[in-house]
Amino acid sequence: MSKEELTKITLPEEMIPKFWYNVQADMPTPLAPGLNPKTRKTLTPADLEPIFARELIAQEVSQERYIEIPAPVRELYKKWRPSPLFRARGLEKALDSGCRIYYKYEGISPVGSHKLNSALPQAFFNKAEGIKRVTTETGAGQWGTALSLACQLFGLECMVYMVRVSYQQKPYRRIIMETYGGKCVASPSTLTISGRAELARHPDTPGTLAIAISEAVEDAVSRDDTHYSLGSVLNHVCLHQSVIGQEVKMQMEIRDDYPDIVIGCCGGGSNFAGIAFPFIPDKRAGRKIRLIAVEPAACPTLTKGAFAYDYGDVVGYTPLLKMYTLGHDFTPDGIHAGGLRYHGESPLVSQLYHDGLIEAQSVLQSHVFEAALLFARNEGIVPAPESAHAISVGIKEALKAKAEGISKSIVINLSGHGMLDLAAYDSYLNGHAADIEFSDASLQESLKTLP
Amino acid sequence: MSKEELTKITLPEEMIPKFWYNVQADMPTPLAPGLNPKTRKTLTPADLEPIFARELIAQEVSQERYIEIPAPVRELYKKWRPSPLFRARGLEKALDSGCRIYYKYEGISPVGSHKLNSALPQAFFNKAEGIKRVTTETGAGQWGTALSLACQLFGLECMVYMVRVSYQQKPYRRIIMETYGGKCVASPSTLTISGRAELARHPDTPGTLAIAISEAVEDAVSRDDTHYSLGSVLNHVCLHQSVIGQEVKMQMEIRDDYPDIVIGCCGGGSNFAGIAFPFIPDKRAGRKIRLIAVEPAACPTLTKGAFAYDYGDVVGYTPLLKMYTLGHDFTPDGIHAGGLRYHGESPLVSQLYHDGLIEAQSVLQSHVFEAALLFARNEGIVPAPESAHAISVGIKEALKAKAEGISKSIVINLSGHGMLDLAAYDSYLNGHAADIEFSDASLQESLKTLP
Repeated sequence: MSKEELTKITLPEEMIPKFWYNVQADMPTPLAPGLNPKTRKTLTPADLEPIFARELIAQEVSQERYIEIPAPVRELYKKWRPSPLFRARGLEKALDSGCRIYYKYEGISPVGSHKLNSALPQAFFNKAEGIKRVTTETGAGQWGTALSLACQLFGLECMVYMVRVSYQQKPYRRIIMETYGGKCVASPSTLTISGRAELARHPDTPGTLAIAISEAVEDAVSRDDTHYSLGSVLNHVCLHQSVIGQEVKMQMEIRDDYPDIVIGCCGGGSNFAGIAFPFIPDKRAGRKIRLIAVEPAACPTLTKGAFAYDYGDVVGYTPLLKMYTLGHDFTPDGIHAGGLRYHGESPLVSQLYHDGLIEAQSVLQSHVFEAALLFARNEGIVPAPESAHAISVGIKEALKAKAEGISKSIVINLSGHGMLDLAAYDSYLNGHAADIEFSDASLQESLKTLP
Repeated sequence: MSKEELTKITLPEEMIPKFWYNVQADMPTPLAPGLNPKTRKTLTPADLEPIFARELIAQEVSQERYIEIPAPVRELYKKWRPSPLFRARGLEKALDSGCRIYYKYEGISPVGSHKLNSALPQAFFNKAEGIKRVTTETGAGQWGTALSLACQLFGLECMVYMVRVSYQQKPYRRIIMETYGGKCVASPSTLTISGRAELARHPDTPGTLAIAISEAVEDAVSRDDTHYSLGSVLNHVCLHQSVIGQEVKMQMEIRDDYPDIVIGCCGGGSNFAGIAFPFIPDKRAGRKIRLIAVEPAACPTLTKGAFAYDYGDVVGYTPLLKMYTLGHDFTPDGIHAGGLRYHGESPLVSQLYHDGLIEAQSVLQSHVFEAALLFARNEGIVPAPESAHAISVGIKEALKAKAEGISKSIVINLSGHGMLDLAAYDSYLNGHAADIEFSDASLQESLKTLP
């Protein structure tokens, strides 16, 4: 058979990584320790045990470079992994930039996003320790969907606090969680002390991930059979997502190519970490590669935030983590990329950004949807608005290279599809996805609340 | 590397079929010819040229066993083909039937269904003949979505008449068509003579595929630069879908297995034809295999219809085709599987059913959603309500085999995912997906209108 030009680079099931890659083994500056929110002393595993499974706590602080993926989790990864790496031939033709553009398609998972990479092990480790019920928060709804399915597959109950503005914008999200057997309420809710307090303070609040986290943590610590689960930010979540980048490295090698630029959108940081971290050892070894985290201009944590200790939630239930933050009291406007509306950032991404190993860019909502439409009409896949942030910068970098007369190899993490985000596309097509001017004054106010 | 138990059977891109398989070469009884709706004489290619591309008309009557897939179409098939054949390990465990259950996942296409298999060649052949604009109808919305994307990829305008009840139940469908650059209106519309007549006759009609077809055909013949495109029923559509079954045969061979039963849902017949027809030569050669078409109890074309000449649309613009039909005036109730609400049936499927080479079963809506939920919670993928008809019978056959103490190999065509059908799941979860009693009296009325 003659060698054909491939559109997608696939790997056989046997090539699903057997280990997660832990970037903590390769950081120039070790992470600052988490602090107990009450005592402000270095966090101990015992502090976290009411909230998380012991194995996840161990992963959180592990310095081992490789951590084995349990067989039952890897078995379930086979439902969609290894995910394909596409050559974006349609987009390349539309841009005529001379660049090689690839996208890793995590939306191929049954839930439509990369989130299942971490939801499955989190459900597995909790089940293994006898937990019956898991609570969480969700912004865009991708995480709550993934955790609902993962809990169902491992026989756990799932309770999701969904940021109110997303709950209202995306009715299908609640339904899919229920289809998988999960429960979903709008946050702030009347079910928790923190939810009721927030409703009293701001009855019309669109909600934030920080408030929803407070509710989910409060729910979890109030019951012995329940743990809390987080879909981004924490080290163990970034660890689980490392399957993405490990696969990309193998796929690029098959294609006999190596990326000049790797791009992921960045809210809490997990999908960006997933695709970018496995390239950190190469970069530290002197390989020329740019790793770009993309965030919304309306919530510019890395590009405008402070690198400081802050809470992950609004009430202060969570540990204090050293990270880039806009202040835990910051309420981002209700943009359509709900998954990126978070005041904080993965401490791992934050430290690596601080050390200059990764870059960050922020983009306006109108540019994001312009890129999303160009992508959908040339590649066929409708991207999630979050993932479209990465596409937007991918296009920008390709056009920049074209202007400079050079050809680059660009890899984008297409972390999810936008089938359940079509209301956002409708808004854009009808001129209702305005750019939100970022207010430096409100940021200064919010940063005053740093602990 | 040790041999692992595979969850999905994948094929390399090079294995995408290079030819479509044409079942007309292997039929015991040749198709009765189509008739001109006005003269009632045997249809000539010239009768069809105002509506269809010449190459598609040639395919419609071709007796060649294999027809080459044009390179640009096969190139675009690479966006998702070959589609994976999954071993339904989660469902198998839940049923504990001892059967081997497989599903061919066509929902992996960028538009989420098998429809793109035919939309791409239809757009390609129309473009090649200088056509600028294509009209069509859509029921569930899967076809309109696929054609909108295909037209965009080949640089054609696309106009979609969408059955009103689906248009109302599924707002996201209109949006995704617009995202791909297509236009979509509810049918009956005020844009056509047939639409206005139907609105005058039944102002509150939920619409039907037959009315929408009348509108789309009328629109197409009224403009020189426009052709009409159909997403099912016709021979050339079944031909294009044959890539599904051809791949399944290769995948089962790799797995060293052969199906005892192949199951597809059946509205106009294209996805069922796609998976089943490539097995017809084996069956005629004496191989023991059952091919089951599944239809809704509310629209039981094969199981309760007449085998007779009828129109494809309500007004009588289309050729008369010999097929199983409930009468072109039949208005099925507004069930959630909008893609199966069609009075007629593919003439190819009809003739093969009449000759005893394929079987048919009808299922109640409540059983369909029960099966869909079991599937989603064990396999992860939320099936389209149409495809869930096939799952429902797959489960039934597995449990029947279990009761008989035998193990069977069952292959289901999972023709699409249900991400844009979640409102239907919501109805079911809230007890609003009642079983519709089929009215024999209304069928008798409708059959009186047969020409």
